[in-house]
Parts: sequence; C-alpha cells; structure tokens
Amino acid sequence: MSPPQAADPVGTHRVLEPAGVLPQQALRLDARREIWDDEVRVRVRRLNLDAASFRQLSEKHRGDGGQVRAEVLDIVRSRGKMQNPVTGSGGMLVGVVEEVGPDSPLGLAVGDRVATLVSLTLTPLVVEDALAGWDGRSEQVPTDGYAILFGRSIAARLPDDLPEELSLAVLDVCGAPALVDRVVRSYTGPDHRGPVVAVVGGAGKSGSLSLAAARQAGAYGTIGVVPHDREASLLRESGLADDVVVADARDPLALRDAVRAAGGPADVTVVCVDVPGCEGGAVLATADRGTVVFFSMATSFSAAALGAEGLAADVTMLVGNGYMPGHADLALRLLREEPGVRSLFERRL
Amino acid sequence: MSPPQAADPVGTHRVLEPAGVLPQQALRLDARREIWDDEVRVRVRRLNLDAASFRQLSEKHRGDGGQVRAEVLDIVRSRGKMQNPVTGSGGMLVGVVEEVGPDSPLGLAVGDRVATLVSLTLTPLVVEDALAGWDGRSEQVPTDGYAILFGRSIAARLPDDLPEELSLAVLDVCGAPALVDRVVRSYTGPDHRGPVVAVVGGAGKSGSLSLAAARQAGAYGTIGVVPHDREASLLRESGLADDVVVADARDPLALRDAVRAAGGPADVTVVCVDVPGCEGGAVLATADRGTVVFFSMATSFSAAALGAEGLAADVTMLVGNGYMPGHADLALRLLREEPGVRSLFERRL
Repeated sequence: MSPPQAADPVGTHRVLEPAGVLPQQALRLDARREIWDDEVRVRVRRLNLDAASFRQLSEKHRGDGGQVRAEVLDIVRSRGKMQNPVTGSGGMLVGVVEEVGPDSPLGLAVGDRVATLVSLTLTPLVVEDALAGWDGRSEQVPTDGYAILFGRSIAARLPDDLPEELSLAVLDVCGAPALVDRVVRSYTGPDHRGPVVAVVGGAGKSGSLSLAAARQAGAYGTIGVVPHDREASLLRESGLADDVVVADARDPLALRDAVRAAGGPADVTVVCVDVPGCEGGAVLATADRGTVVFFSMATSFSAAALGAEGLAADVTMLVGNGYMPGHADLALRLLREEPGVRSLFERRL
Repeated sequence: MSPPQAADPVGTHRVLEPAGVLPQQALRLDARREIWDDEVRVRVRRLNLDAASFRQLSEKHRGDGGQVRAEVLDIVRSRGKMQNPVTGSGGMLVGVVEEVGPDSPLGLAVGDRVATLVSLTLTPLVVEDALAGWDGRSEQVPTDGYAILFGRSIAARLPDDLPEELSLAVLDVCGAPALVDRVVRSYTGPDHRGPVVAVVGGAGKSGSLSLAAARQAGAYGTIGVVPHDREASLLRESGLADDVVVADARDPLALRDAVRAAGGPADVTVVCVDVPGCEGGAVLATADRGTVVFFSMATSFSAAALGAEGLAADVTMLVGNGYMPGHADLALRLLREEPGVRSLFERRL
C-alpha cells in the first residue's frame, strides 16, 4: 500500500525541498524505506562516486580519507541522496533488489543483482553502516544501505560473465557508444559511405567504447585523439582507431590541424575528455554539415553555441544523453567483442 | 599591409591572453584599428546587447543605468570586446563598413550598412564616445566606435525596406528559425506527417520566429508556451500558434502537463526563454525519440545531459547553433510574410 501522496514516475513525490522541482534539482529527498507502488528498493552494496565529485572531495580534504568519508556521510544524511553540492554530480550504485512494488514497470525481481543507470543525484539513499568499510581514498565505496528506484528509473542486471567492477565501469559510460551508434547509422553524407569519426579522448572509457561503436556502425574511418604519446601507444595497441593523433583538445587550432592531418575534417566528432575548453576545437575539427557529440560534463553550453556561431560553422551539436534504450547491452557487447576495449578498461580499474 | 603576425580566418592572431585560445574564449583581444589583409573594419553605430547579459547587468545594479553603462564601458575597455564575464554572452552590432582588407572573403564594400551575425563575444571592439548617448536602461546601445570582422566572420547587409531596429532584432535571433526549419523538414515520424512543435517562450523574438518557421516547414501542429495570460493574449492575436498554453517553464511537471493538454507531447520542443532551469521540463514535454532544441543561453549542459538520463528520456538534444547558411534571409522573409511575427517584434522594440 502506498503512502498517501500519489507517486509520479519521475519521483517528484519524494522531493522534500524545494517544492515542484525534479529529484535531481532537489536539496533534499524523502528517503523513507517504505516504497510507493511503482517503486523498487535496492539493498546497496557499493557506491561508485562520479570522478569529478570524488576528486573535488579529495582535494578539499587534502586526501584525508576520514574527512572525505565524513563528508559523504553528511551529504547523504542531510540530502537523502549522494549529490556533491559543489560539482552537482553523483555517481551510480550496485546492489540487490530487495522489494518490488506491484506497479513497478522496471521488470526487476527480488534478488536481482543490479546497477543503477540513473545518477545518484536523483536516487533516494540511506547509508546504514556509516561507510565503515571505506577508507575514503577511492571512488569505489563498499557500503550497506538501501536506495529507491522510481517508476521511470533505469537499472541494468549485472552480467555473470564479467567482473563486477568491469561491468560497472562500462555501464557508467554506456550512453556514449549508444548515441555514437545512432549518429553513425543515421549519417547520410555524399558517396553513400559512412562518416569519418574522430573521438577526442579516444583512449578513455567512453572514448574507446565510442570508437568501437563507430566502427561497428559503419564509420568510413576512425580517428582517436589523445593528449600524449603514452596514451597514443595504448590506443594504437588496442587497434580501435584507424588513426591515432596526439593533440591538446583545448587548443582549437592544434585539434583542427591534427584531425585534418589524419584524414579529417571529421563528419562526426565525439568529445569524451573531461576538461573544459574543448568546444571550439571540436567544432573546427568537424566538416561542414557534420555533427559534434559532446559527452564531456565539462562542456559549456554557451561556449558551444556561441563558438559555432562565431566560427560560422554549420555543424549539428548534440548534448550527450546518457540514456538510450538498449545502451547497457550494446556497451557490454562491445566490451565482450572487442579485446581492445577490454584491455583499455582493465588498465583503468 | 598587414602587421607582422599572419592572420588566421578565425581571428586567433588578435588574441592577447591566454595564448592559443579562440577569440571567444580570450580574456583580452587586440582591438587595434589597423586591419590584417583578410579583415574588415566597421564603424559601429549601435550595439545590441544579449538579453541574458543585459538582464544580469541590470539586476546586479538594481536598474541603475549609469552603473550599467559604466560596467559595459569597463568590460569593453579591459577585454577589447563586449563579453559579459558572468553570462559569457555578448550580442551583436550595427555599423557601416569603413575599410575592407584586400583578402577579405566577406564580399563587403566600404559604405555598406551591416549587422554582424557573429557574437560580440569574439569581435574586437573599441568604444570612442564613452557610450554618452545611452542611458544604460535598454539592450539597444547607440554608440560611436569601431569593430573588426575576421575572414570567417558573418555580416548581413541591412535591408532597405525595414527599420534598422527591426532588422537588428530579427537578425539577432535568426539562427533559431533556421535550425527549427531544418529540424522540422528532416523529421521522419510515424504517419508521414510533420512533427508537433512546442515553442517555450513562443511570444518572444526567437520564439515567434521559431513558431512561424515550424509552420512554414510543415509542422503538423504548433504549441506556444508562455509564462502568463498577457503574453498568451498577444500570441493568440498573432495567430502564429495553433495552441497557446500558459505554464512556468521552470516547473517541469507543469510544462509537461500543459504541452500534453495542448496536443503534446511535442515531437520537437524549442526552448527560447532566457531563464535557467527549463531543461527538465523541456525533456518531459517531448515525445519518445523526439528532439529538444535549446536556444536559451541560460541552458545548463549538465542539467540537460543528466536530466534526460535521470528521466530515462530517449530524446535528441541540440545545442542551438546561431549560424546556418541563409539564416538571415529566412528570418527576414518570415518577418515580411507573417504579420504576426512583425507585430510581436514591433511590440518589443
């Protein structure tokens, strides 16, 4: 039986303040244990803090794990969710389904081992072990507690054939290859060939998956852009890109020229590096009527919009959406099928 | 004869600091009077400040025009361009071509009356009259000074059949109808009909042009969303939207429900209101596999990206690009052909 207020699939019934906002924008969520009819409660085993959030906390406390742990605990207690107030970001979690409301549309069953694919920034969460098993020095937070999934949340069952950490790392960025797949398949350029795809940050997690997705979807050529020679070697060894070039993505002319030298401009440019200031270079590296996909959370909307205008660049610019139906399956398939992806991921665990 | 450093068509030769960035990202531009061979110098008659920028300045100084004027002067003097350091936005300008470099590809002649269609945020600018003719209380800033256009800038000759203020106001937002036109024409939904298009801020400048563009491009239906009854009456009188609804765009459920009640969800939602916090509502107002076009400079990239993910919404999100070939001509044509657009614009001058 549900509590009195009707549930909304997006979770607004759990917003305590301010009134009327979505759970992600809320200062405080109602993290009560009792579920509404369309909700699911998950027993949490591990939190995976967003990299930007963990870095901010760690730097603020000068690497003092005890203080980092205390602050995370305080955030979760006071907000009813894990959302870093400075970076605004959260992360994801792994757990086991504990209770499923009779009207839940998620298709989960009690006992399923799942990862949430919606951000912790909007997930009601209660930590019950005071994070006693975490030293505060890694993004991976073993814990015991519970979290709530709404009617319109997304959770993926964790595969049995892959280590949990590996699955988690893939699921965390699975929106990127899914959108690249769609953009490459819907490309209609001259010569009835696929697009030339450049991935900025090609040796990273979302970057390597994007390169693999682009090739499988029929890219005419793939270019991986990396910041230095060490990553260039790694990416070359992986075999995921037809060409690998070294450039500072924050230097627009350098990025443009590097992509051009590797067979560009790109018909599709995918930005996967989490540093600010890559908008202009991405636009300049892209062909007339081409597409830029921004997956970096460091992207500035106004820098992208005004940048393209200022460069008189007729490019389509997409905000990377972390969700697409089937995105988890596609990313896990790429990991299984492409040894180059797997080796790059395993290096980063 | 050009100064020693070679000109780059995107203007990097005028960047003073930091080194290596594009003019838009620069803290300071070289606004020297002397032009490089591919540049054009324009005698400035009027600046048209970006709405978000003007509002921020006006609110900061509590409507004190003298202080607003002093801050604009200070920005232009210290940065060599008019870029609001808080909003990051600029605006555009009107002037008369004063000198054309021998290698300029812009096709302009001395004496042409032009408006720049690239942002002031990247345009070297010198104010020579201390803004003496401006009271600091309007976005329209009459002035005397000069500005520099690069090889890859865009400027439109002002039409003779329209008042200058009207042309300017239209050219300032001409990217919006151009992108809406393209998105509507390329829509491939079920039933071989056009998309249902909702324009949030439909009674505004970019909003009214977007509504007109959507209908001319073959929208199946158009919905104008406005914040209160007075704008609703204006928009209804204009005849530009099939349906007009009142909703606070910052309230996601209210926006979703209002668009739904008017025949939505929308296949294409266009966000034209310059207030923060409209991302979630725009996503929720949009149909599965639909498209959201963000034209508001108040859009937050992370709010859009994480918001769509958090709502498990499979929507394509576009960063509104202010440039597209033919955008000025399309917008001016809409103004001439649609009395409703013209009347809404004239009310705002």
